[in-house]
Amino acid sequence: MLTHDLIELSPAAQAHEPTVRELRVQYETELFERVLPFWQQHSLDQRHGGYFNCLTRTGACYDTTKYSWLQGRQAWMFSTFFRHVEQKPVWLDIAQSGVSFLRQHALRPDGRVFFSLTAKGKPIYQQRKIFSECFYVMGLAGLGHATGDAHLLDEARTGLEQIWAWSQDLAEVGRPVHGGQPESQALAIPMILLNLIEVVGDGEVDPYRNAIDECITRIKRHIHTGERKVYEHVRPDGHLLTGADGRLLNPGHAIEAGWFMQHWALRLGDRELQQLSADVVRWSYEVGWDDEHGGLFYFLDAEGYDPVQLEWFMKLWWPHCEALYGHLLNYAITGDAADWEAFMEVHDYSFRRFSDPDHGGWYGYLDREARPTSTSKGAPYKGFFHVPRALWLCWSLLRRLEDCTLSSGDR
Amino acid sequence: MLTHDLIELSPAAQAHEPTVRELRVQYETELFERVLPFWQQHSLDQRHGGYFNCLTRTGACYDTTKYSWLQGRQAWMFSTFFRHVEQKPVWLDIAQSGVSFLRQHALRPDGRVFFSLTAKGKPIYQQRKIFSECFYVMGLAGLGHATGDAHLLDEARTGLEQIWAWSQDLAEVGRPVHGGQPESQALAIPMILLNLIEVVGDGEVDPYRNAIDECITRIKRHIHTGERKVYEHVRPDGHLLTGADGRLLNPGHAIEAGWFMQHWALRLGDRELQQLSADVVRWSYEVGWDDEHGGLFYFLDAEGYDPVQLEWFMKLWWPHCEALYGHLLNYAITGDAADWEAFMEVHDYSFRRFSDPDHGGWYGYLDREARPTSTSKGAPYKGFFHVPRALWLCWSLLRRLEDCTLSSGDR
Repeated sequence: MLTHDLIELSPAAQAHEPTVRELRVQYETELFERVLPFWQQHSLDQRHGGYFNCLTRTGACYDTTKYSWLQGRQAWMFSTFFRHVEQKPVWLDIAQSGVSFLRQHALRPDGRVFFSLTAKGKPIYQQRKIFSECFYVMGLAGLGHATGDAHLLDEARTGLEQIWAWSQDLAEVGRPVHGGQPESQALAIPMILLNLIEVVGDGEVDPYRNAIDECITRIKRHIHTGERKVYEHVRPDGHLLTGADGRLLNPGHAIEAGWFMQHWALRLGDRELQQLSADVVRWSYEVGWDDEHGGLFYFLDAEGYDPVQLEWFMKLWWPHCEALYGHLLNYAITGDAADWEAFMEVHDYSFRRFSDPDHGGWYGYLDREARPTSTSKGAPYKGFFHVPRALWLCWSLLRRLEDCTLSSGDR
Repeated sequence: MLTHDLIELSPAAQAHEPTVRELRVQYETELFERVLPFWQQHSLDQRHGGYFNCLTRTGACYDTTKYSWLQGRQAWMFSTFFRHVEQKPVWLDIAQSGVSFLRQHALRPDGRVFFSLTAKGKPIYQQRKIFSECFYVMGLAGLGHATGDAHLLDEARTGLEQIWAWSQDLAEVGRPVHGGQPESQALAIPMILLNLIEVVGDGEVDPYRNAIDECITRIKRHIHTGERKVYEHVRPDGHLLTGADGRLLNPGHAIEAGWFMQHWALRLGDRELQQLSADVVRWSYEVGWDDEHGGLFYFLDAEGYDPVQLEWFMKLWWPHCEALYGHLLNYAITGDAADWEAFMEVHDYSFRRFSDPDHGGWYGYLDREARPTSTSKGAPYKGFFHVPRALWLCWSLLRRLEDCTLSSGDR
């Protein structure tokens, strides 16, 4: 069962143009005929296992470096399709190839995971962060749930525990602490842990109740409801930090955190958290949307200064993917026309701007006016993950909406 | 004496529109009435010493973090103006304030220098690179030469020796080495050392002859004359690396390396090196110039792939600053009309696009079509350095060209 299957849909709100059915077909086609085949055809390293990540518009590999984030995510995604869409042996093979590559080459004896490796699996770079470890565990857990392999699931659970411990003190992963660093926490950490707990535990609440509550408590400190803003970095008590880091908004991140929380709100049956999670998506979309040229900004400054990140004005694929599912999920819960309109706005922009009509797959990087600044389909931070995850989650939710509409006799 | 005073100018080549005199006045006005006053008025931290680096369009401080690169560079720049332009006590005070702040707060007992500090001087971040140390030493050397303070100059020389040793093995500054990393060298290191040797030794050749030769030998490995390209990363023997890193071009960096080398070619009286240095500037300008919208791209891929750096298409202030002086220096040496035309092309673009007619100072970051994506005048990597250095070097060289023209009876 998917988390959004917990939603009790209200059939009254389904009369739309395009129809839910048309959209469901569009997502199905985009995912299974245009995006998935591109990656299945071009990303597999038949020789050394794992996946090539850096792919041009037509699928040629322009750099053979393998990035652990993307290896783990792609393995999770194919495992998930095997489990929830169709038990195609080739999908399982693909997932297994990535997990084998990671286990054989990326994992260090102390549990740390290299960030990048050569095609053959020799380590290139190690981040002083916990994200390579998170996506390694994600891949293992996905495959474990797809196959029922208890050993893999054990490894994933142990990995999650280790990451949890490191997340409490990043000095443990080599992040040095200096006297002038403000005491702060980053939204990225509790939000990614919250998703990882859902992935590893397959949505089970009881064994993780304390960890779930702690993540949600920490995320809430970033949400300043009075201003309708989600700050990327705050003090450990939730108060605002001074300076550019303290004012940083990352709308895509906040929207993603919103639906991660919403999944737990549904599982916990927590109405108040459902409302907050829905608002986080809406507020972040509102603040992040570019009224002049459309699309979501990558970064913003809460007080309107120009962000110091050079690429702040660019439109990246992944915030739009998060917004697609975030709004559709909101709509499925609330039936609110404004949620549907927001979904359709980001839907129109995304399919028009990111989807490549000629070669399949989505572009990743647009300028402010929505022209691709790179036509690559894969890059060091863009793999087979955000696009297929959003298309799949939206497609499966649209199927439920469609069924509900049909059964209510609306069509 | 400035290095370009070594050039024997040929008076024949000076009949231009705008006249050399008009340009000299324009550079003088821009530097001393529009750029320098902005920073003198807005960047000084009267309370804790040193400089605020993050300044809005109108000069307000939007983040009080102090970046060591920018502290050292600004101290060097004001010292240099005191020494070479006019002995204004206020300029010396400003330089001293930056050097004191750095010595008191940024320097660690082991000689390493923190990358960033709070306004009061508490350390925030330490890079695993040698550049903070380079610009620290640059500040010390600039002030030492301006005041004749032997102690400061000793410290700068010792610092340079230490940096030289670290540059031979970056594991010494905490850069971990992994088995899959290709053996490679980055242009940034020999080029910055070559400039630092000129700054610390005030252009003296003899004490540094071996180090100068080694830097030039290493830079030459990046220059592939057959293709007229300068690669940012190459194998230690100069052969090309595979992958996106191996194909990376950074035209601004290459142009800067070109004029750094040219300074030594002039001091060494090495005609062959003069020719190569001039060509490096020309080739890099040629490859880096955006024929469609004007301006120099930040990054390019030698084989035409889209670079993986998100901001590759942006137009940054500093490559244009380097190109201004690089071309004018070429022209002063060669008298070649093509060098003058290239200088005028980048001159027109830069003064039109980067210079702020209303508030003084230059913008740093434009999109491909030359619209500012940030109107900030100062940012974590943009301080009082590239703009005033280029304006000053061009201004002083234009003065020589003007004198030469006048004495030859051309005007």
